[in-house]
Amino acid sequence: MPVNLPLPRAEDLFPVAGVELGHAEAGIKKPGRKDVLVMRLAASARVAGVFTTNRFCAAPVTVCKEHLAAQAGIRALVVNTGNANAGTGAPGLANARATCAALAQEIGIAPNQVLPFSTGVILEPLPVDRLIAALPQAVSHARADNWFNASQAIMTTDTQPKAYSTRATIGGKTYTITGISKGAGMIKPNMATMLGYVATDAAIAQPLLDRLVKDVADASFNRITIDGDTSTNDSFIVIATGAAGGPEFTDEATAGYAELKAALVGIAGKLAQAIVRDGEGATKFIAIEVEGGASVEECRKVGYAIAHSPLVKTAFFASDPNLGRILAAIGYAGITDLDVDGVDLYLDDVHVATRGGRHPQYREEDGQRVMKQAEIRVRVVLGRGQAAATVWTCDLSHDYVSINADYRS
Amino acid sequence: MPVNLPLPRAEDLFPVAGVELGHAEAGIKKPGRKDVLVMRLAASARVAGVFTTNRFCAAPVTVCKEHLAAQAGIRALVVNTGNANAGTGAPGLANARATCAALAQEIGIAPNQVLPFSTGVILEPLPVDRLIAALPQAVSHARADNWFNASQAIMTTDTQPKAYSTRATIGGKTYTITGISKGAGMIKPNMATMLGYVATDAAIAQPLLDRLVKDVADASFNRITIDGDTSTNDSFIVIATGAAGGPEFTDEATAGYAELKAALVGIAGKLAQAIVRDGEGATKFIAIEVEGGASVEECRKVGYAIAHSPLVKTAFFASDPNLGRILAAIGYAGITDLDVDGVDLYLDDVHVATRGGRHPQYREEDGQRVMKQAEIRVRVVLGRGQAAATVWTCDLSHDYVSINADYRS
Repeated sequence: MPVNLPLPRAEDLFPVAGVELGHAEAGIKKPGRKDVLVMRLAASARVAGVFTTNRFCAAPVTVCKEHLAAQAGIRALVVNTGNANAGTGAPGLANARATCAALAQEIGIAPNQVLPFSTGVILEPLPVDRLIAALPQAVSHARADNWFNASQAIMTTDTQPKAYSTRATIGGKTYTITGISKGAGMIKPNMATMLGYVATDAAIAQPLLDRLVKDVADASFNRITIDGDTSTNDSFIVIATGAAGGPEFTDEATAGYAELKAALVGIAGKLAQAIVRDGEGATKFIAIEVEGGASVEECRKVGYAIAHSPLVKTAFFASDPNLGRILAAIGYAGITDLDVDGVDLYLDDVHVATRGGRHPQYREEDGQRVMKQAEIRVRVVLGRGQAAATVWTCDLSHDYVSINADYRS
Repeated sequence: MPVNLPLPRAEDLFPVAGVELGHAEAGIKKPGRKDVLVMRLAASARVAGVFTTNRFCAAPVTVCKEHLAAQAGIRALVVNTGNANAGTGAPGLANARATCAALAQEIGIAPNQVLPFSTGVILEPLPVDRLIAALPQAVSHARADNWFNASQAIMTTDTQPKAYSTRATIGGKTYTITGISKGAGMIKPNMATMLGYVATDAAIAQPLLDRLVKDVADASFNRITIDGDTSTNDSFIVIATGAAGGPEFTDEATAGYAELKAALVGIAGKLAQAIVRDGEGATKFIAIEVEGGASVEECRKVGYAIAHSPLVKTAFFASDPNLGRILAAIGYAGITDLDVDGVDLYLDDVHVATRGGRHPQYREEDGQRVMKQAEIRVRVVLGRGQAAATVWTCDLSHDYVSINADYRS
């Protein structure tokens, strides 16, 4: 069961002018489920993305980077689930290119105007014939008010779709921002994440959009981890169609840009948190806030050490305030000159540790009370400087093991 | 159930002249179990150790380092289980020192001739009164032929004791080497590991012993990981009593040193592997051999990335040849210029992947056959150079979650 994650409702997802979405059932892995998504973009749309740092990156990631670099104007995206097309070598690349070519022909554009995405099992050949055969159906169904079906079509082990939408009025003009994402394991994005797509009808110049997508990822998808496994396919895409007709945002000084960015970060942050809330086997949502660091980098190290520790994660699952495990993780996070006497640890409002040991007023029942909650804030104060970083994660439960032991069956 | 780990038998553990071991039941955490070990050493004994790199290191680790640095001649070791005396601040240090003082008084030596060790739960005060009260009993029971009880007295979540013994005849002289260790979670040693003690009756000069303990740790305890959690208490100690009466080993050129070192590595390697075989919830023993690297460091990075991946570990648990997960771990291990087309992956004798994808002759049933084994060799050839490294680990099972969710109850 996801942690405090309401199901999206189709009527809450606003269409974004300039984006049409169509889905299909290609039977990539199993018949009878939505497993293909096509997004068609207006000619005015600009697109930017960030992608996995995994050296075994999937074939579609390689093709995405090529096509974005070609600057031919992206007019369509195609996503399949059920197969990652990763660890597939030269045939995998050929299959990703063939998919782009087929979709391009179907809608009358050039192959390098298509971005391909895949998610699913690694090291198995993509059933490209079934994927291509389903494209006409997806294209023919494409509609602007189809975000809900789109969010379902990109799911793998997710237990529910993830979609958010908002409107922001900036300089008298109302812009729409709608996004979808999918998790739910192999989640420790480095540049970006699994699959996430956010579209707006604002007009944003390409150089600014290229920076914006990185800033938004850093404030959202780059803060989450489920199991520390950086996927081969992580991709996060921002689409700006310009169809709302407002003035173009050309650089960071453009009036209203901060508000637009905040609105995009808001949606991307919700999509990222939704992935953790629906993490494989998750029963708790944990925000790890590390502050007082000498650098953001060392704060992130501490946050990820805590978030990745199987011992910490199983203690959360058990609601067991075995909080020495958190101190141990802080201690091995890689800050070689850390003075542990300067470290403070809080669990929500409970002061757990200080001066290298348990806080004198700490009581087991206070720790127990917080650990029983479905949402927990871990706050670490390093006492070394002014830098801070936040990491969002979930616990490690029996269901995580079951899901990943049974994934291919 | 441990993986292919026979129970030690008391009669197979040779006494080491110059070492006497006594145990007691102090009721540190629960009554009715052996939880204190005292080792008394002959005046001729020399001792060296390596310790955790965790910045939240336990109080006894700090005291061990102080007492070794004092060079007063270590004459006794004291180990308690049931409480780690870590994350205990200044009172923890005082308790570790009080323990040394009490044992020193009991046997008529100086406090800085005692090395203290603790293992168990973190962040809780050590019940030092109960520990001290049990010391006379442990001292009075000390015998040379007590290694089996000693191996039991240091257990925490271990399902069985770990002890090995051998004799090596070098230059006409027969030396005895006997050792014990304990795991079984929070295991990713960096300098050393949990608790491991190896004693020999050979005479080894202190400077050589100081180097030897590091070399032996690097070839044994520093190769294992269960859950990636570097403990606050990891300690590995080598004792050389000199009681066998042979010539002193003074430097690496001393005749027979290579054979003596090999014998010590043999025992330490078995003790280290035993910790993995009895890892919390382990059902498989996995040796990850990475070769063809540009440096040992990058080979270790790849080995640990594979060994720590929850997705890889759950696939082993399920005997599921979902081997793309191994490629993904190689890809995010941190070799930023890795050419994946040059990487080869083998599972025992089965060639799984080459040229960035699945090997043309790879068949699912071959992968399945190996994955069903209790012992599996993963071999990664990076194709970048001549360096190699090996990491030993286990799988991630439901029992790991159960054990760590219930640890304190």
